[in-house]
Amino acid sequence: MNAPLVAASLMPSIAQRAIAPAFLEQLQARFGPQCSTAMVVREQHGRDESAMQAPPPVAVVFAESTDDVAAAVQLAAQYHAPVIPFGVGSSLEGHLLAVQGGISLDVSRMNKVLSINADDLTVTLQPGVTRKQLNEEVKSAGLFFPIDPGADASLGGMCATRASGTNAVRYGTMRENVLALQVVTASGEVIRTGTGAKKSSAGYDLTRLMVGSEGTLGVITEITLKLYPLPEAVMAATCAFSSLADAVNTTIQIIQLGVPIARCELLDGNTVRMVNQHSKLGLAEGPMMLMEFHGSPAGVQEQIATVQEIVKDNHGHGFQWADTPEERTRLWTARHNAYFAGVQSRPGCRCITTDTCVPISKLADALLDSVDEANAAGIPYFMVGHVGDGNFHMGYLIDPDNAQERDTAEQLNAQLVARALRLGGTCTGEHGVGLHKMEFLVHEAGAGAVAMMRAIKQALDPHNILNPGKIFAL
Amino acid sequence: MNAPLVAASLMPSIAQRAIAPAFLEQLQARFGPQCSTAMVVREQHGRDESAMQAPPPVAVVFAESTDDVAAAVQLAAQYHAPVIPFGVGSSLEGHLLAVQGGISLDVSRMNKVLSINADDLTVTLQPGVTRKQLNEEVKSAGLFFPIDPGADASLGGMCATRASGTNAVRYGTMRENVLALQVVTASGEVIRTGTGAKKSSAGYDLTRLMVGSEGTLGVITEITLKLYPLPEAVMAATCAFSSLADAVNTTIQIIQLGVPIARCELLDGNTVRMVNQHSKLGLAEGPMMLMEFHGSPAGVQEQIATVQEIVKDNHGHGFQWADTPEERTRLWTARHNAYFAGVQSRPGCRCITTDTCVPISKLADALLDSVDEANAAGIPYFMVGHVGDGNFHMGYLIDPDNAQERDTAEQLNAQLVARALRLGGTCTGEHGVGLHKMEFLVHEAGAGAVAMMRAIKQALDPHNILNPGKIFAL
Repeated sequence: MNAPLVAASLMPSIAQRAIAPAFLEQLQARFGPQCSTAMVVREQHGRDESAMQAPPPVAVVFAESTDDVAAAVQLAAQYHAPVIPFGVGSSLEGHLLAVQGGISLDVSRMNKVLSINADDLTVTLQPGVTRKQLNEEVKSAGLFFPIDPGADASLGGMCATRASGTNAVRYGTMRENVLALQVVTASGEVIRTGTGAKKSSAGYDLTRLMVGSEGTLGVITEITLKLYPLPEAVMAATCAFSSLADAVNTTIQIIQLGVPIARCELLDGNTVRMVNQHSKLGLAEGPMMLMEFHGSPAGVQEQIATVQEIVKDNHGHGFQWADTPEERTRLWTARHNAYFAGVQSRPGCRCITTDTCVPISKLADALLDSVDEANAAGIPYFMVGHVGDGNFHMGYLIDPDNAQERDTAEQLNAQLVARALRLGGTCTGEHGVGLHKMEFLVHEAGAGAVAMMRAIKQALDPHNILNPGKIFAL
Repeated sequence: MNAPLVAASLMPSIAQRAIAPAFLEQLQARFGPQCSTAMVVREQHGRDESAMQAPPPVAVVFAESTDDVAAAVQLAAQYHAPVIPFGVGSSLEGHLLAVQGGISLDVSRMNKVLSINADDLTVTLQPGVTRKQLNEEVKSAGLFFPIDPGADASLGGMCATRASGTNAVRYGTMRENVLALQVVTASGEVIRTGTGAKKSSAGYDLTRLMVGSEGTLGVITEITLKLYPLPEAVMAATCAFSSLADAVNTTIQIIQLGVPIARCELLDGNTVRMVNQHSKLGLAEGPMMLMEFHGSPAGVQEQIATVQEIVKDNHGHGFQWADTPEERTRLWTARHNAYFAGVQSRPGCRCITTDTCVPISKLADALLDSVDEANAAGIPYFMVGHVGDGNFHMGYLIDPDNAQERDTAEQLNAQLVARALRLGGTCTGEHGVGLHKMEFLVHEAGAGAVAMMRAIKQALDPHNILNPGKIFAL
């Protein structure tokens, strides 16, 4: 814990294991056309949205059932071959890279919503279902699933990374919203964690252990989630601020007053400029807050009245309101397009994304200095934040062929993480550790806690076949 | 999973380990008067509120600091001696019994609230702080901690059993309300889990693994909890029903409509009669619901209007309302005294408590048949329920010297658990597995999941010294 925090490396340590030819032969015999060794397929499965790179997996298995997953893992266990679960490939932290070789296990064809239980506000589904698909399928029952990490991620991937995003400020993260799982263990056995009950004290919380385990403890093959009734009233709003500090202080006060706001997001002026260019929105080019309120009509009005007071006290202005789905979509365009607007503002760039989360009272300390540092370093960036949770992202837009820029971005990232840890926060609010934050995790959790994680991994996956080399070196 | 569910035994399997005299000598040298071998102290620490019995621990160490806990565990690790963490002794499942011998590690003197962070709505405290003490200490900051299991339990014990109780229907359980822990591991090392951030994806969720681990994976020495602003408006209510089915259906409809009710409790008519006798309350002797509403004044009125409608549709009557703390206390007396009223209704009895929790849509199926079965068996019982969560308790009041009654009660318990599992529920909503529900856990979770729990235990506590023999046989 005492060594200075060093910049993470974009060059993962590669130690590919020798894969027995018999393993591939047996995979092909079991899976036929569901097993591909075509280079284009392997390459597509060997990368993600991070700026990190590694050689592709030796093969891709397209699982269509829990039996398929169990069979693939059983073969991998027999040959001690790495297995990397794959949903839609939207990880930002190198989770999908085959740094120790092995196969990619694509579960995107396991994309059925198995049962919607409106009486208990739950749904059971396969891991390849994406969040947009899920919301389409439960809408007619008057229900929705709130967790929205931005990308149209698979629910399996969202479980694996303990995802959150907008809406988490009110509805919690995947940690709070997964009720039960079916999991294929490292030996290829199928187990279930949790039940349909809302709460339980029945032994170790294996559900919460699997959620956020980044594919290293088991392959998730079935998920039971909480759903919520579509709110009676929804109102979205944006407002502008002259200074970033004013916007951040507004956020802090909204949360400290206990307003049950459903979304509370922030873009800095630089990022608003990028989305204006990208989506021709004509927004005032200063810091912008985006909010959403859910509840009864009276409850929503009550929340809005409180928030308007706070915004006014902090010199916010230019409120825009939307209460129809179409208007809300228009208002939220800026937020939803921020990542792409940022990346497209610099053709050919790669994005190094930060993900710190701090206690709400420390948000100004964490965020304002980080933006100042990025501006001082002169590196292009965007900044978006789930600020209601104390979570924000800097996206440093680097030329991947420019070592100097890469180093600068990683140095900024390291400074930002060190600051968040000093303030009692975490290096990753929602993206996971993957390859990119392994050093940071040791500083955050301490060597003893990481040793405990490693001991659990070794006990549950003695041959280290499940997504090896992620979270901690092993 | 296929064998029929058998009744749990009140006779735990006792396999006391030989304790090296040098272990006790070294404990006494390190702890002096903080280490007691007086029989009265040992006996007081060798039992809990369950009906189970075992020989007492060989000694009791009164820890006053994390260093004390670490030193005691280090000595125990050296001699492979069991260590049973002890808070206030309010477990209902035999957690505190020294079935494998060893020492009781009493943390009740570690009872300081270390810091109240009103800006972030968190508090950090030692494990011996009780929930009433905590609420006294944070009241002046305008805050409260909602989890209320009935007993004035220690927060350490509440973490260890993943406790909940009234209020969980709105605020969640210990699972949702513990932010971070300091833990002494089985080797006597001190680690920290979690940070001050509201959410995190930084590695395995060790906090959630420790919460509910019943003292078998570590000794909790410091706890950071979420707090909540005292609600602007609080209104409590009771109402009566002619039939238990009507009361249960009222509950189901309140939850399904998404009313953010803070407490939603039920007593059957038999239990109302017991509390009338115990506390001279003069309540109408039929099924009674107790509710509490938190929010803004308008929000509370909105909830009440909805609930009144539902109650009326289900033939409820005799509403009583209370909005001052004194009146609320009076109204809640029936609920708070139910356990004692039940136990005292039969002098000399012991209570065997059930704790199933089912999906809300299955509550009527689970509860009504269980009450009918108890009535048919002719065994005295009380019934109270955190019904808003689908969780209820039957307390079978048995003569501990009457083997027939014990068997009948355990048979009723087994039937009730089997029914809950068939309905997608859990054998324990909030009390934990302890000694009494180990068989049930295997039926609920399956042999594979229990094997995974056991593998984790063996990895983190290779000499099996932390509360051995609980949750699963080992």
